[in-house]
Amino acid sequence: MVLKEALDSESNSESISLRIPLCDLVHRGYEITIGSSNLNSVGLIISRFNSCSRIVILTDSNVQRYGYSSVVESSLVNAGFDVHVEIIEAGERSKSIESAIKLWSNFLSLGIDRSSILVSVGGGVVGDLGGFIAATYARGIRFFQIPTTLLAQVDSSVGGKVGIDLPQAKNMVGCFYQPLGVLIDSASLKTLPDIEYICGLGEVAKYAVSLDTELFNVLEKNAEKIKLRDSELLKYIVKRCCEIKSQIVSEDEFEKTGKRILLNYGHTFAHSLEIVSDFKLFHGLAVAIGSIYAARLAERMGMVDKEFVERQIKLYKSIGLPAELPEELLVTINYDEIINLMTHDKKSESGNLRFVLPTQVGQCRVVKDIDPKIIKQVLCENN
Amino acid sequence: MVLKEALDSESNSESISLRIPLCDLVHRGYEITIGSSNLNSVGLIISRFNSCSRIVILTDSNVQRYGYSSVVESSLVNAGFDVHVEIIEAGERSKSIESAIKLWSNFLSLGIDRSSILVSVGGGVVGDLGGFIAATYARGIRFFQIPTTLLAQVDSSVGGKVGIDLPQAKNMVGCFYQPLGVLIDSASLKTLPDIEYICGLGEVAKYAVSLDTELFNVLEKNAEKIKLRDSELLKYIVKRCCEIKSQIVSEDEFEKTGKRILLNYGHTFAHSLEIVSDFKLFHGLAVAIGSIYAARLAERMGMVDKEFVERQIKLYKSIGLPAELPEELLVTINYDEIINLMTHDKKSESGNLRFVLPTQVGQCRVVKDIDPKIIKQVLCENN
Repeated sequence: MVLKEALDSESNSESISLRIPLCDLVHRGYEITIGSSNLNSVGLIISRFNSCSRIVILTDSNVQRYGYSSVVESSLVNAGFDVHVEIIEAGERSKSIESAIKLWSNFLSLGIDRSSILVSVGGGVVGDLGGFIAATYARGIRFFQIPTTLLAQVDSSVGGKVGIDLPQAKNMVGCFYQPLGVLIDSASLKTLPDIEYICGLGEVAKYAVSLDTELFNVLEKNAEKIKLRDSELLKYIVKRCCEIKSQIVSEDEFEKTGKRILLNYGHTFAHSLEIVSDFKLFHGLAVAIGSIYAARLAERMGMVDKEFVERQIKLYKSIGLPAELPEELLVTINYDEIINLMTHDKKSESGNLRFVLPTQVGQCRVVKDIDPKIIKQVLCENN
Repeated sequence: MVLKEALDSESNSESISLRIPLCDLVHRGYEITIGSSNLNSVGLIISRFNSCSRIVILTDSNVQRYGYSSVVESSLVNAGFDVHVEIIEAGERSKSIESAIKLWSNFLSLGIDRSSILVSVGGGVVGDLGGFIAATYARGIRFFQIPTTLLAQVDSSVGGKVGIDLPQAKNMVGCFYQPLGVLIDSASLKTLPDIEYICGLGEVAKYAVSLDTELFNVLEKNAEKIKLRDSELLKYIVKRCCEIKSQIVSEDEFEKTGKRILLNYGHTFAHSLEIVSDFKLFHGLAVAIGSIYAARLAERMGMVDKEFVERQIKLYKSIGLPAELPEELLVTINYDEIINLMTHDKKSESGNLRFVLPTQVGQCRVVKDIDPKIIKQVLCENN
C-alpha cells in the first residue's frame, strides 16, 4: 500500500523536515539610460519588454504642468500602447496609505493585470509611491521609472527602495522592488525649482564627501557650472552617483550585509531633523546639514581633522548648500527629541545609534554605540 | 581635469547607458518542520536564527481560544525572547487594509525593527496578513509561519504569497515574501471546525487529482482515516502536498514561467464562485466545486473521459467534499457574472480566460482561449 510504504520510511513519532529550495538564481539587473531631452525615447525602450499592452503613467500635478508626462504619454501611444494617466497632488502628503488605496482600486477598475507596466514620471514621491503600488498590486507588476528631479535621479533610480509614509513616520511601509529600467533626462532639471535642485545637490555632495574623491574634485572645481545647471556636467554627475550607488547596492541589495549603510552619510541626523521640523526642512537640505554634523562628530571622535570639516563646508557653500540649521529651526529645536528619534530610526539595530562617519575625502565607515552625550554636544556646540 | 577626461570618454550628445547588476545569487530556502504536538519546539527553532531579541506573535481570536498561541508564546519566552502578542478578530474581514494600518502603527509604537521577527499562528488570514506586514514594515522584517488549519498547512506554508484583500477583490494587494521557516503541528487539526477541515481537504484533493497519482491513491484508499483526522496520515498528506507545491514553486517562484499556474486546478472557477456567493462559499469548498467544473470542462474538450470525472466525484464524496454548488447558491447564480469575473482574475493575461485542466489522474496542463460559451454550457448543464 502506497501510504504504508510512505509512512514506514519515516519515524512516526518524530517530526518530519522538508527543505524548500527557492530559485537561488534570480536575474534582476536593469539599465539606466541618461541623456538630454530624451523623454520621447521611452516608447521605443518599453517596446523591447515582452507582452505589455497596457501602461499606467503615474505623475504629479507639477510634473504634468511642465509637460513631461505628456511627452512620455505621446511616445508610448505612438509606440502602440494603451495608456492611462493617474495624476496625484504634488508633495510628500501624497505618499500616503490613502493614495495607495485609491490607486489600487483604480488599477482594479481599469483591469490592470500582471502584463501591464506602471511608468512613474516625477520626483521621489511619485517614484516611491509608484514603485510601492507596482510591488504590491496583484503581488507585483512591472515598473519603469522616469525620475525628473535631481534627488530622484541620483538617489531613487538605483536601489529598489519603494514605499509610503505612515502618519507617524516616513518610509516605514515599503519593499525592495527593482524597476524594469530607468530613463533620465538631464534637461528636465532646467525647470526644477531652485530649492529642489539644491536638495538634489545635498545627496550629490553626500556621495562625493563619503564615497568618491573624483566626484568631490569635480564638484569643487565646477561650482559655477553646477549653479548654471550645465547639462553635460549634470549627465556626468548623475551617471557617477548612479554608478557609486549601484556598486554598493549590488553588494547588499536588501540592507543585510551592512555595506548599504555606507550610503547614509548624514542621514541619521537628517531623518530626525526632518521630523522635528515637521518636514518643513526638506530631505536634501537635511542631508546636507546632517552631513556637516556627521563630519563634526567624526572630528570629535578623532577620525578626521578640522581641515576636512572646513573643506566640506567650503564646498557646500560654494554650490549653494546650507551648512547649518536655518534660524527659525534653531530657535525651537529640542536636542533630546532629536536623539530620541535617532534611536527609533528603522535603520537602527535594536535601539543602538549608528552613524556613517568620514575617515577622509571619499571614504567613510560605520561607527556604532556612540555615547548620546557626545552627539548632543556636537548638536549644541555648533549652533 | 577630472571632469573633462570623464566627459571626453563619452559622446556628449548621446545618451549614456548604465547597467545595474543586482545580486544574481539569492539564498532564500527554508525548512518546514512537520510533527504532532510539537508547537513547544518553536523557541528552539527560532533561537537558531541570528540576532533576534524581539518577537511579535500575530494570531486570531479563535486560535487564541484553543490555546495554541499561548504554547508558542511560552516556548518563545522560555527561550529568552521578548514577546508581544497581537490578536486580530478571526475571519476573512480581518485581512484588510484597516488591519494592516493598525499593525504597522502598533509595530512602530512598539519599536519593532529589522532585527525583530513576526511569528504568525493561525490559518490563512493570519498567515497572509502577517506575511504582508512582515514584507512591508520597515521594507521587510523576518517572518516565521505556524499554520494551524489544514488549508494553511498544505497551501500557504509553501509559496511565499502574502497579502490583503481590497473591498472589491480578494488578495489583490500583496507580495511574494518567503518565510524564515514553517512549523506544522498535525495535532492542531483535531480542534479545527468540520467546515474548515473539509475546506483543507478541497486543496488536498486538488493536488491529488491534478498533480500526484500517489496522493490520489492514498486518499481513495483511506477515506475513513481521513474523516477521523488520523494524525500520522495527516502528517503524510501535509508533507506530500508541501513537497508537490515546493517542487513547482521552486521552478516558478514569481508566477512568471507559467509553471506555477499548474497549482490552480479548479481555482479559476473557484475565485468567481466565492465572489458571486459574497464569500459565503468558503475557498476550499469553492476549489472542490471548481475542480469538478474543470474536470467537466476537460471532458467537454476531449481531454479526459467520463470515467475520470466520475472517479473524481466519487473520491470527493467519500471524503466529505461537495461535488456541486449548494442549493441556495444555485437558485440565485448568474453565469454571465461568473464568466465576467473570471476574465478579471489577476492571473488572467490581458483578459484572456485560462484554465488548468486534467489530462489524467495526477496530471494537468494549462488551456487558454476557451470560448466563454463552452464554459457557460459546462456551468449550466451540470446544475
